[in-house]
Amino acid sequence: MSKITVNLATNLKEKPKDQSKLGFGQYFTDHMFIMNYDEGQGWHDARIVPYGPLPLDPSAMCLHYGQEVFEGLKAYKTQDGRILMFRPDQNFKRLSMSNERMVIPAFDEEFMVEALIELVKIEKDWIPTAEGTSLYIRPFIIAVDPMLGVHPAHHYLFMIILSPVGSYYAGGLAPVNIYVESNYVRAVKGGLGFAKTAANYAASLKGQAEAELHKYSQVLWLDGIERKYIEEVGAMNIFFVIGDELVTPALNGSILPGITRMSVIEIAKQWGMKVSERRISIDEISAAYDKGELKEVFGSGTAAVISPVGHLKYNDKIMIINNGKIGAVSQKLYDNLTGIQWGKLPDTFGWTVEVK
Amino acid sequence: MSKITVNLATNLKEKPKDQSKLGFGQYFTDHMFIMNYDEGQGWHDARIVPYGPLPLDPSAMCLHYGQEVFEGLKAYKTQDGRILMFRPDQNFKRLSMSNERMVIPAFDEEFMVEALIELVKIEKDWIPTAEGTSLYIRPFIIAVDPMLGVHPAHHYLFMIILSPVGSYYAGGLAPVNIYVESNYVRAVKGGLGFAKTAANYAASLKGQAEAELHKYSQVLWLDGIERKYIEEVGAMNIFFVIGDELVTPALNGSILPGITRMSVIEIAKQWGMKVSERRISIDEISAAYDKGELKEVFGSGTAAVISPVGHLKYNDKIMIINNGKIGAVSQKLYDNLTGIQWGKLPDTFGWTVEVK
Repeated sequence: MSKITVNLATNLKEKPKDQSKLGFGQYFTDHMFIMNYDEGQGWHDARIVPYGPLPLDPSAMCLHYGQEVFEGLKAYKTQDGRILMFRPDQNFKRLSMSNERMVIPAFDEEFMVEALIELVKIEKDWIPTAEGTSLYIRPFIIAVDPMLGVHPAHHYLFMIILSPVGSYYAGGLAPVNIYVESNYVRAVKGGLGFAKTAANYAASLKGQAEAELHKYSQVLWLDGIERKYIEEVGAMNIFFVIGDELVTPALNGSILPGITRMSVIEIAKQWGMKVSERRISIDEISAAYDKGELKEVFGSGTAAVISPVGHLKYNDKIMIINNGKIGAVSQKLYDNLTGIQWGKLPDTFGWTVEVK
Repeated sequence: MSKITVNLATNLKEKPKDQSKLGFGQYFTDHMFIMNYDEGQGWHDARIVPYGPLPLDPSAMCLHYGQEVFEGLKAYKTQDGRILMFRPDQNFKRLSMSNERMVIPAFDEEFMVEALIELVKIEKDWIPTAEGTSLYIRPFIIAVDPMLGVHPAHHYLFMIILSPVGSYYAGGLAPVNIYVESNYVRAVKGGLGFAKTAANYAASLKGQAEAELHKYSQVLWLDGIERKYIEEVGAMNIFFVIGDELVTPALNGSILPGITRMSVIEIAKQWGMKVSERRISIDEISAAYDKGELKEVFGSGTAAVISPVGHLKYNDKIMIINNGKIGAVSQKLYDNLTGIQWGKLPDTFGWTVEVK
C-alpha cells in the first residue's frame, strides 16, 4: 500500500481568476486521490488521477444507506511561498474513529498524510494567495457495493478532492446571528453525533433551512434527550466566555470532536485561561447573560476558524453578546490560529506540516 | 411532466436462471426510471433508459451529506399471469413525507405511480414466478449538486430501479432471533426516524453487524431518550400479541410508518381483534412474558411480510416466544397478506394495483 500511482491530466482547467469570488467548495482542482477497498484484498490501488465523475451503480450502497464518512481541512500558502497544512494527522485520526463507528475498514493514517502531501504538491498552483483564502481538502470514503441489502459494505472508495476557497469573512471577521433550535435534533447519545458522517449533516438540513428563512446564519443544537444541554452548531463547535472562564460542551458522544476546538482549548490553556469542558445548559447561558457574566460566544471550525456570535436567540429571548461586537478573546484566538495557519506566527505547538 | 420518454436497451441481460438463488437486491433489470430536478425548472425529463452507472461528480452532495430518500415495494406475478403491486400509492405518499423532512422538493405522487407501472410493464419478464419470489422496486432520490456547502441541494435525481428477489424464507416461514439493543440508538424524537432516509440505516449498521456476530438476525431498537420504549427492528416494525391484544408502538416521530404495519392493523381490526397502537416498554413485554401472557412477537415489512420472532433477548434474559414456533396470528396474517399480494385471495381492501 506504500505506492501511489500518478496519472497526470493532459488538459488543465482554467483557475478561477477572481479570488474574492471563490466561495466555498464550488471549484475543484485538476486531480483527485482515489483508493479502493475490496474485501479480501484490503485497501489497494492508491492513485492520483484527473478529477472527474465517478461511475456509480444506481444501487451503490452510499446512495441508499449513508455508509460514508468524510473530513475537512485546509492547506495555506504563506507570504514567503511555503505551503502549510494544519494538523492533518488529527483529521485522519478522527476519520479512523468515524470509520470504526460506521463499520468501514481501518486504513493507514500515516500513509494517508503522505498521499495528501503528494496530491497537494501536484496541485500547489491551485492554492489561492489572497488574504484569507486557502485550499480546502475533502477526504471521504463511500460504500459502493452494487446491492440493496442493509449491511456494512464489502467495497469502498477512499477519495480526496481539493477546492480553492475564499475567505469566510468577505469583509473581515464579523459576528454572526444564531438561534437555539428547539424542534429538531441533530444527534443523540448512542447515535452517530461524534462521527463525521453524512447522517449528522442530513439531520441538520431542515433546521438550517428554517434558520436561513429567518435570517439567522446557523442554529445551535441542544441535546436530544433533555433538550437543554448545549451541543454544537453543526458546522462548528461552540465556546462561551463566562466571567473569566472559557467553557465548551464536553465531548459526550453526540458532538463532533473538532480539531479547531481542540486547538482553541490548547491555546487558551497555554495563555493561562481557565478552560472547562463540561455539560452546560442553555439556562445557565441565559442566566449568565442576565447577570452580565456572558462576555463572549464564538464558534470554532475549519471553515471560519473562529466565528464570533453577536446575537443569540433562545425562544423569545434575544441575547446581544458583547454589544454585537467581536470580543477580545475571540479576536485573539482568531489572530493566533490564523497566524499559525498562514505561517505569520511561530508554530510553537508543532501543528503545521509543510508540503515540500 | 406528464410525458415519459422511453429508450429501450438494445442488448438485454441474461436473467438469473435459478430463482431459488436470487437473494435480495443483487440483480437489476435492463431499464431504470430517471427524472431530474433543477431549481427554477422543477422535476423534468422523466425517462426510462437502459440500466447503467450514474456519472456522479465526486463532490455530489449525496456522497457527503446524506440528502437522499428512498422507498421499497414489490410487484408480484400471480398464478394466472397477472402482475400486481401492493399499495404503491402509499409508498409515494410516504416518500413525499420523507422529502418534506429532508428538504427535497415535492413531486407528483400520481404521476410516479403511472411511471412505475410503465417501467414494470417494460420489465414484466423479469418478475420471477417461483413460490415467494417477486420484483423488488426501489424508488430513490439523491441530491447531486457538485458543491460542498452544507445546504439543501438545488439539483436532484429521482430514480427507480428493479430487482428480482427470492423468497425471504428459503425453507418456508420460520421464526427469527432478535435482541434488544442497549448500546446504540437508531433515531430520536426530533430527528429523522420517521423518514425513509439513509441516515437511519447508517445509524443501524453497527448494531446490526454486532447482532450478526452473536448469531442474531436483527436488533430491536429502544427509544433514544429513556431507552426503555420499544421502537422498531430497523428493517421491520414490531408487533406483540399480549393476551388477546395485538400491540405495536404508536407512530411517535422516531419510527418508520410501515405500509405492511398499516395493513396488519387494518386486517386485524377487520378480524375483530383488539389492536392498540401505543407506547410499550420492554419491561412491560418482559413482565407479560413472565406472566405467560406474551403469546406472539412478529415483525412486519416489505421484505419478509411477516417475520415471527422465536427468541427475544433483553440483557441477560432470553424469552422463548410461543415455544420458538410460529404463532397462529402471525401465520394467519402472513397467509392473508401474501394471499392478497400474490392474488390468491380476494383483495377486499382494494390494496393491489394491477399492471396491465
